[in-house]
Amino acid sequence: MKSVKDYIEYINASFDAMSYPEQPRGLYDPIKYTMQCGGKRLRPMLVLAVAEALGMKPEHAVRQAMGIEMFHNFTLLHDDVMDRADMRRGNPTVHVRWNEATAILSGDAMLTMASQLMGNCPHDKLHEVMSMFNKTAMEIYEGQQYDMDFETRNDVTESEYMYMIRLKTSVLLGCACAVGAVLADASAPVVKAFYDYGLSLGLAFQLQDDLLDTYGDPRVFGKKTGGDILNDKKTFLLITALDRADVRQRAEIESLYGKRSDDKVSRIKAIYDSLNVGEVCRERIAAYIVDAVACLDTIELSEEARAFFVNLAESSSDRKS
Amino acid sequence: MKSVKDYIEYINASFDAMSYPEQPRGLYDPIKYTMQCGGKRLRPMLVLAVAEALGMKPEHAVRQAMGIEMFHNFTLLHDDVMDRADMRRGNPTVHVRWNEATAILSGDAMLTMASQLMGNCPHDKLHEVMSMFNKTAMEIYEGQQYDMDFETRNDVTESEYMYMIRLKTSVLLGCACAVGAVLADASAPVVKAFYDYGLSLGLAFQLQDDLLDTYGDPRVFGKKTGGDILNDKKTFLLITALDRADVRQRAEIESLYGKRSDDKVSRIKAIYDSLNVGEVCRERIAAYIVDAVACLDTIELSEEARAFFVNLAESSSDRKS
Repeated sequence: MKSVKDYIEYINASFDAMSYPEQPRGLYDPIKYTMQCGGKRLRPMLVLAVAEALGMKPEHAVRQAMGIEMFHNFTLLHDDVMDRADMRRGNPTVHVRWNEATAILSGDAMLTMASQLMGNCPHDKLHEVMSMFNKTAMEIYEGQQYDMDFETRNDVTESEYMYMIRLKTSVLLGCACAVGAVLADASAPVVKAFYDYGLSLGLAFQLQDDLLDTYGDPRVFGKKTGGDILNDKKTFLLITALDRADVRQRAEIESLYGKRSDDKVSRIKAIYDSLNVGEVCRERIAAYIVDAVACLDTIELSEEARAFFVNLAESSSDRKS
Repeated sequence: MKSVKDYIEYINASFDAMSYPEQPRGLYDPIKYTMQCGGKRLRPMLVLAVAEALGMKPEHAVRQAMGIEMFHNFTLLHDDVMDRADMRRGNPTVHVRWNEATAILSGDAMLTMASQLMGNCPHDKLHEVMSMFNKTAMEIYEGQQYDMDFETRNDVTESEYMYMIRLKTSVLLGCACAVGAVLADASAPVVKAFYDYGLSLGLAFQLQDDLLDTYGDPRVFGKKTGGDILNDKKTFLLITALDRADVRQRAEIESLYGKRSDDKVSRIKAIYDSLNVGEVCRERIAAYIVDAVACLDTIELSEEARAFFVNLAESSSDRKS
């Protein structure tokens, strides 16, 4: 097994070495720009690490690792157009740097390129890899649609929220793990166990994102905290707070919807603190990490491989950015 | 072989019978709406007719026929967002009837659903079908990018224009024919001959579109004519006119760029008429139809099948809408 740092370097080097057609530049430049803007590379790392843990050389899974990452970046690119987000990873988004038509079309091309990368595998694996990939893609669109639907609702339940992040975020981590396992010729139960590991990891990961957006250290987090609160985003924290709030607290939260006043973040945070929702969220994250590690126990793995996936899960709750 | 009318009915019935998940409605309703808005169904008809001409039951190619049509409608949906078009086939476009985020996301889902439909074929055909489909998709995005690039250029050459419509329009007709042939177990030369037939048909088809936009009968054409002229679209007619124009005519055309005056269409049409560009376009269409029919001559076909494809090609230059 490689270290996390070495996997990231290998993935970045693979994208740097990827060749694109020269023309039309208006189509391919934004794709290069997007793929070279970095990111945690968590999803491709999962493809490579699972394949390697099951005895396969990572080179034989690198195209699918890149395909999953290309797909992930396509969804971010189109989400940024839909959300009118100006910045991503410290850089202007594609629709800001170029224009909206370019962002839509380049994103479309990234989805097809992702499909091409996924399909660049042995013919006897093609059907399973493509079915998994396409099914996951559909689930992610559904998740994005629910997320948008939630913007205009103030009665989102915790279970609706968990279902939404399962679709929007977690299934891609599950798919990444499962594709690595399929490529390495794993049995169906092992593919399933790795899928479930990725799913639990994804839920922990998204809840940690929610937590960091409110409680992160802005110097380490890389962007201003409090954005979710300002935008009335239906996060785990807000939904938990509404569940636990008394009449007065609920009224105060509701009175702040749609406002962008200076003290909105601190007032909502004070309610969160009095209701202990940060701690509830941290406990939930810990529970999903326990779930993820439990999935590993059903798989025969070397000590080294097991340690890699346990560390990866545990570090997702330690991360500060 | 079925008649054109029967193929269209079969395709429409197949889309009507297609089942979509119940939820989230915001994602699936626009897709149903788009797929039930009709259209000429030319591309899926080509898949079915080629498969049937080569001895295969059309039922065994219907999913790929639907996949190609779903893909085509996805490109129209996203193009309409990029072009800010309000109407399509007499109905409000998705971004007008819903909103832009919905149009982007539903389009993304249509691309993945198209990929699922294409991949729903015997495993030994999967690699070839998906490679063809994905390669064609990339070419179409390139064509759309060139088309957008041409908007801000006044020096587009005829060969650049023909290359653009080859990518944006023709390759999908070629791909539709080739996929039908691959499914029916055709040899490589037959696949290639059908691909080339579709390509020439597509070029004729797009030039006929250019012609109808200026010279069509608005009552039959289904929308106002002159739109391309008003929008300074770099069509075959405009490029040919600029090629043949004298200094005075060129100056008049250029003086009207960006204008939307009442007499713009009639003034440009008068130049077109004096330079005979309608006739040049009609001759070119006839030449592509000859090319298309010549491709058929290399394929062993029943009289009935041959007649079907010859008629289809010839009717593309007779069509009024």
